[in-house]
Parts: sequence; C-alpha cells; structure tokens
Amino acid sequence: MRPLTLDVLNQQLQEVQYAVRGELAIKAELYREQLKSASQSLPFDKVISSNIGNPQQKGLDQPPITFTRQVAALSEWPALANLAPGVFPPDVVARAKELYDEIGSIGAYSHSQGVPFIRKNVAKFISDRDGFPADPDNIFLTAGASAGVSLLINMLITDPSAGILIPIPQYPLYTAALAQHHGRAIPYYLDESRGWSTSVASIEAGLAQARKDGTSPKALVIINPGNPTGALLTRDTMADLVKLCEEHSLVLLADEVYQNNLHRAAEHPFTSFKKVVRELQSPIPLVSFHSISKGVSGECGRRGGYFELTNISAEVRALVYKLVSVGLCPPLSGQIGVDSMVRPPKEGEPSYALWKKETDTIHAALASRTQLMAARLNALPGVSCVESPGALYLFPKIEIPSKAVEAAVAAGKEPDAFYALALLDDTGICTVPGSGFGQKEGEWHYRLTCLCPGVEDYVGKLERFHLKFTEKWA
Amino acid sequence: MRPLTLDVLNQQLQEVQYAVRGELAIKAELYREQLKSASQSLPFDKVISSNIGNPQQKGLDQPPITFTRQVAALSEWPALANLAPGVFPPDVVARAKELYDEIGSIGAYSHSQGVPFIRKNVAKFISDRDGFPADPDNIFLTAGASAGVSLLINMLITDPSAGILIPIPQYPLYTAALAQHHGRAIPYYLDESRGWSTSVASIEAGLAQARKDGTSPKALVIINPGNPTGALLTRDTMADLVKLCEEHSLVLLADEVYQNNLHRAAEHPFTSFKKVVRELQSPIPLVSFHSISKGVSGECGRRGGYFELTNISAEVRALVYKLVSVGLCPPLSGQIGVDSMVRPPKEGEPSYALWKKETDTIHAALASRTQLMAARLNALPGVSCVESPGALYLFPKIEIPSKAVEAAVAAGKEPDAFYALALLDDTGICTVPGSGFGQKEGEWHYRLTCLCPGVEDYVGKLERFHLKFTEKWA
Repeated sequence: MRPLTLDVLNQQLQEVQYAVRGELAIKAELYREQLKSASQSLPFDKVISSNIGNPQQKGLDQPPITFTRQVAALSEWPALANLAPGVFPPDVVARAKELYDEIGSIGAYSHSQGVPFIRKNVAKFISDRDGFPADPDNIFLTAGASAGVSLLINMLITDPSAGILIPIPQYPLYTAALAQHHGRAIPYYLDESRGWSTSVASIEAGLAQARKDGTSPKALVIINPGNPTGALLTRDTMADLVKLCEEHSLVLLADEVYQNNLHRAAEHPFTSFKKVVRELQSPIPLVSFHSISKGVSGECGRRGGYFELTNISAEVRALVYKLVSVGLCPPLSGQIGVDSMVRPPKEGEPSYALWKKETDTIHAALASRTQLMAARLNALPGVSCVESPGALYLFPKIEIPSKAVEAAVAAGKEPDAFYALALLDDTGICTVPGSGFGQKEGEWHYRLTCLCPGVEDYVGKLERFHLKFTEKWA
Repeated sequence: MRPLTLDVLNQQLQEVQYAVRGELAIKAELYREQLKSASQSLPFDKVISSNIGNPQQKGLDQPPITFTRQVAALSEWPALANLAPGVFPPDVVARAKELYDEIGSIGAYSHSQGVPFIRKNVAKFISDRDGFPADPDNIFLTAGASAGVSLLINMLITDPSAGILIPIPQYPLYTAALAQHHGRAIPYYLDESRGWSTSVASIEAGLAQARKDGTSPKALVIINPGNPTGALLTRDTMADLVKLCEEHSLVLLADEVYQNNLHRAAEHPFTSFKKVVRELQSPIPLVSFHSISKGVSGECGRRGGYFELTNISAEVRALVYKLVSVGLCPPLSGQIGVDSMVRPPKEGEPSYALWKKETDTIHAALASRTQLMAARLNALPGVSCVESPGALYLFPKIEIPSKAVEAAVAAGKEPDAFYALALLDDTGICTVPGSGFGQKEGEWHYRLTCLCPGVEDYVGKLERFHLKFTEKWA
C-alpha cells in the first residue's frame, strides 16, 4: 500500500492560494480557542475578525434583517403562522405563503437553475434597476457568488495557455479558481494614486504582456465596487471597458456583489454593466454576479446569490444548465434569501418601517466607520489609505521599515504578512496582507473590514500597534 | 467581436452528462407548465417525478421531520422562543439555544470545514455507529454529498490518464465529475443475477482493462447501499474490497448516503467501511460520504452532508481545507440539518414520540412501496426487477421489442431512453433510462424512485403503459 501523500495528488491544486482564510485566519482561530481556556495568557482579551466580509459573525454581530428571517422561519415551519397568531406581520405571512405555494417544501431540490418564481423576481429587480428588460431564463441562482465565478472560469479555460484578466489588487477567489482550473491570471494594475481607478491603458498593458507570454485572453474580470479597494467605476470608464471587450473579443465577468454598499451614493453612484452594455447596444457576452452575503443583507451563511447571462446564446446557456445540474440545486435557504433581497418590504406595508430603520442603520454605520478609520489611518506616519466610496473594506498602504523587511525575509514571510501577523499577535485583530490580493512590487498593504463595532477602541489598537511596530524596527 | 459559441469553451465540459436532470426531466418540466394552462390537452393530469430521490418535492410531499424544522425555524429567528411561548417543545428550544451559543447567527460564514461543534456531534454519531473513535478534525461538512465527491475526484485526478473505478450501473455524478476534471472512468460491473452484487473479480477485470488502456487507477468508488440498484454489501465482500484497495494502492470512496434507507434491516443490515477498515486495521485511505438529502430526513433543499477522512495525513487534510476554504463554507441551513440528523430526539425527551412516529412512517411506506412495486413489475412480461433491500429506487430490466429498438435508433435515441420518453409522454411519469447509469451492452433498464404516494394507481399506470408499448412494437 503506497501512502496518500501530496505528491500523488493533483499538483495544480497545490497552487491554489486563498489568503482570506489562510495562515492568519487559522492562527486567529487558535487564539480564539486559547482565550476560552483561562490558563493561556495573551496580550488581548478577544480576537477581532477583520479578515473577511462576514457582517453577522460573533463579535461583529450585525443584526440580520428581521423581514428576511421572519420569512425564512415561516418557510422552515409553515404551521407557525397559525400556531403563533399575531407574531408575524401580515405581509410576512403573505410572502411566506406565496413562496410556499410556488416552491412547496424548502426541503426539496428545486430546479437546478433556481426556483422559476424567484428567478422572475430577480429579473424584475434587474429591470427596475437598469431600465432594460431581464429574462428569468438567463438568471442562475447560486450558492453565493463564488460558486458562479468558479463555474464560469472552468468553462472559459480551454487549455493551460488560456488566461483571464484580473485586477491587481484582486479578490483572491479569481486566482484560486484559475489555479484550480489550470488557467493563467493576466494581471492589470489599478491606480492607487487615483483612488484605485481602473484604466483601459493598464488593461491594454496586461494584454500586451499576455501576447508576449503566449497567453490567450478569454475574459476580463471587473470588481465594481472594488474588493479590496472599494473603488467605484465611472460611467465613462465602464463604456470604455465594454468597447475594449468588443475589440479583444473578451467575455466580461462583472463582480457586482457590493452594489448596495455605497457610502457616498450621491457623489459615487453604482451603475451596472448590464445597463451600460444595453445602452451601448454592445454585443459583448457579459456575466454579472450578485450575492446576499454583502449589501445590508449580510447573509453569508445562507450561501445565496445569482448571475445573469447577457448576450449569451441558448446553446451556451444549456451547457451552463447541464453543469449546474450535476450539483442538483443551490441551497433553498439562499434562494429565499435572494427573494427577500430583491423584494424587500415596500412603503405602506407593515414590515416597511422596521426594514427601513434596520437598513438605514447598517448603511450609516458602515459609512461613518469607513470615514473615521480612513481618516485615522491616514494620520499615521507611513500609512496612506484611499477612503473607499463602496464595499466593506479599507486597503491602507503601509511603509515597512527595512529592518522589518529583512526580518520578514529571514522568516520566509512576505513583509506585509509579517506585519499582519505581528498585528494579530499583539492586538488579536486579524486582517489579510496585501500580498494575498496582489500589489505593485515593493509596496505593502493590508485589507481590513469596516464592520467592527466599537470603532474608536478598534482604531486605537491599530494606531498603537503601528507606532510600536515602526519604533521597534526603526 | 467573435461570438461566444460552444467551440470556444472548455471542450471537456461538453462531455459531462447527468441523466437524472437530463432530457426527460426537462421535458417533464415543460409538461408541468403545459398542465397549468388549461388550453393544452395531455393524456395525463399530473407529472410524477420518479427520476430523482427528492422526497419532499411537490406531488410526493414526504413531510419533513418536525423536530428538524422547529430547530431550523428557531435558528432563523431566535426571538421566536419568547414571542411564541409554548409553541416549541422545550427540547427544541434548548437545542436551538445550544446551537446559537455555539454558532452565533446562521447568517455568518462558519469555519470552512463546518461549525466545530457540529463536527464534534458528527464524530460522536460515527463512533456510536461503528464502535471506533472519529476525530472532528477529519470531518468536513459539505453542501450535500455531491460537492464532496466532486472535490475528491478533482484532487485524485493528476493527469488525463488517471482513472477511478466506477460501478456499472452507477450514480452519474461520478462520470460527470470525472468528465469535468479530465479523468477516466474505469467501469466494473455489478451482477444483476445475484441481486446487483459487487465482486472482487469484476473489479480485477476493470483493473486489467485499465492497464491495457494505459489508465492509471487512483481510487475505487463503492455506493452502499447502491444507487440505482439498492443493493447492500455483505461484511465479507467489504473486507475483500478493503484488501483489494491495499493491494492496488487505491483510495476508497465510500458513498454511504443511503445508510439509513434499509427495507429489511434484519436480513440486510448496513455496515460502514470505516468500521471494516478499523476492524481489519487496514491502512487504506478512505473517504466516506453521508448526506441529509436521503434517509428519513429527505432534506435535499438544505444542501447538507459531510465526509470523513480515514487514514489520511494532516498535510493532505490541509490541502482539502484550503480547497474548501475558497468556497468559504457549506450552507448553515445544511449544517444545522446535519446536526439534527446525527442528534435526533432521544427516548424520554418531549420531541421523541413525534419523531419516532414520523420516521417509522417514512421507513414503513418506503419498504412497502418497494416491495409492492417490485412484485408488480416482476409480474409483467419482459420485465425483471431485483427487489432492493435499501436506498430509494428500483432498477427494473426491460425487454424492448426489436421494432422499438429500430425506431429508437432511427430517432437517434438509446432504446431505453425511447421507452422512458414514451412512458413520460403517455403517463406523465418521469424516470431515468438505464443508459444514464450504464449497463451491460444490449440490456435495458430504467430507474424509478419508490417515493410516490398512491402507489396502486402509480403502478397501474406503469403496467398499462408497458403492455401497450409491448403490443404496439410487437
């Protein structure tokens, strides 16, 4: 019997990297366990998970939207509406009944593409948002956006020379999925000096490099609002990017999961790529991703989302259907979560006032924390930070003293991972080093979420640590 | 702009076939839509989905276990326990509180491997079942068994010459996942004349053929209880299979999702491969899959399950962790469903009596339907059917008149697909042709579930159709 060792397994998979749940997150879990056993002494009394956009996790405790959870509870046990009369608002009872009539039990597999009725509601949400029609047959409900992105990358990678244009910095799902499916990442750089803006010139540079490397570009990934940057594209840039996809025959993969996380919406509104493609009457194939994990919903644990196919033929759509059918269907709890996201209570309905109050509170907290954290980080020596107009994160640039860089290299760590590990060891704050997202050679960043309550205390810890670290390695 | 056509996409994916949700299932959905609009006349008044083990779907309506759904409803909206006092039994309230204390909000991402507390409960379930310890660190919660199977196949396929031994007939997830990950299926044949038994000799024959074809065998898939066959392995056969894996350095992938669907448990009990491997003190790497979609739970829509790694090193386990972490976590509704499956109410607890009644009813209905359907099918001319001791299906062998075979070939269909399509067109009963699972050359079968209520009426339709079809093509 030959033992099962790494070298007898698929080597390509060993290239997969996913820093958001990597070394630091694993260490943070160990610290959390240690804190439970009183015998261990650590320099902090709690672990703060700023590494991942997970609003409802313990310690952050962003409350779920009551409407969403009431509908879900009734879907789990429909008899409740009669057993607990008056406990659920009448619009919730009506909504749950409507879903039950359409779906039946949420314990059954649905259509592999998602419940037809919910896809109809998603299509209406999209057409109301954009002013252009959407077809429920082009909507695929998914277990979060990640599952859809991975599927599309699998479809687009025809051979090991195929590549996909990925922003740097990027959300590492993209490089992980490319590694898993034997494809190449073609990097293009966002411009930090202009608020992490995207330019056609930088993508053209990426394409030129790909040609030199013998890489065949298949698609362009755009994350808007950006992750980890929080940047928002302008309508003009979006039009230029659509033209670029036309010119180079690229499929556009538009990751729009943060479309409802806008901190200064008047100044920086969100426009969908679907709308721009339709306005320009462009023929480019577009796949747009959305999710219930972000926005004000923050329902990460349900695993719900969708993607919409635009300018994609029925035969290609049939292939997508066949592939998703092997996994049977997305979780029904995620599907009904999507329904609540695209059909929130309307003005005049019994649940509206509470829904409005809850969502306003979440928006306001995120905006004010983002602003405060950016201002305080920018005031630190050796730190500069674009104040994100969208998404859930900040991505400060940090200067790391050369002695610390040397110590990092000696320890076999990237210097920003060395910094982030020291931050975790000292304060219990878990972040993700910029090297996990990609950055320009010789620059260092880290990503942290703006989800933490008690932001004054939290920023205070970041400040004290940074000053201490800088002094230690001066 | 070059349009996005099938030929510019990953060709390998076009080989993926998944008959359970294939041509027949799609046609059945169209019929269902047609029946809603009164203008269409069809020779039946309802579509019966016998193509998939989906107990809670509309028309089958196997009721969910009340305990499971009560715990889930409280997890969705914890305030309910106080808002509706007395509605939930006290053990349900206590269970939901215990889960909340451990997990926090089910709207948060959990540990990528699954909630540690739930993995502990799974480990206890396994050790109680087998009499050997299980380690929570070796348990991975999943979105149904399918997600885990696909991941393991991806890991094991090192290059396009790598193959995995697959029973024929098989559940088509295996060949679909192999096609997706560029691997080869190495077929071995189950013996219908001996109740679909598995033999070492047939696997040895598969291995010999693989050597001739230049295929490098990596793993052996065993489905026990069988799908589509419902067969159960004996302890002796299991021991032989473990020895065979030792000899040939094969990873054993044990699909045990039907372990709780036993119709004659005294005569045909279930033994897990984990238990046999431990009893034999065998070093073979084993991955065992279980699910909440089958059994008496039937919670397909939650997407919950787990796999356990046995005799697998920490470094390989770390690779598994890294890969699952890219998808963030399995759905929490599935995870708490797993918890309810492995920790049902105990005798003496308030929810026990109802739980016992509900599960006994489901077991009894499945056993009696399986027996009745097998007897009636066996009485038909040209039909023979092994009476399954386990799982949810029958897989009758059918003789197809040669004129029908010719007509099928002329229509570009497999003869059993031709038969199953005619059955659907005539009766509204949707099944899966045997060709979707694999069968011996020149033999024909179809798979149907034993989940349909109104079994007399249902079998009557099957009988009348079969006689009509046989007469038509005589």
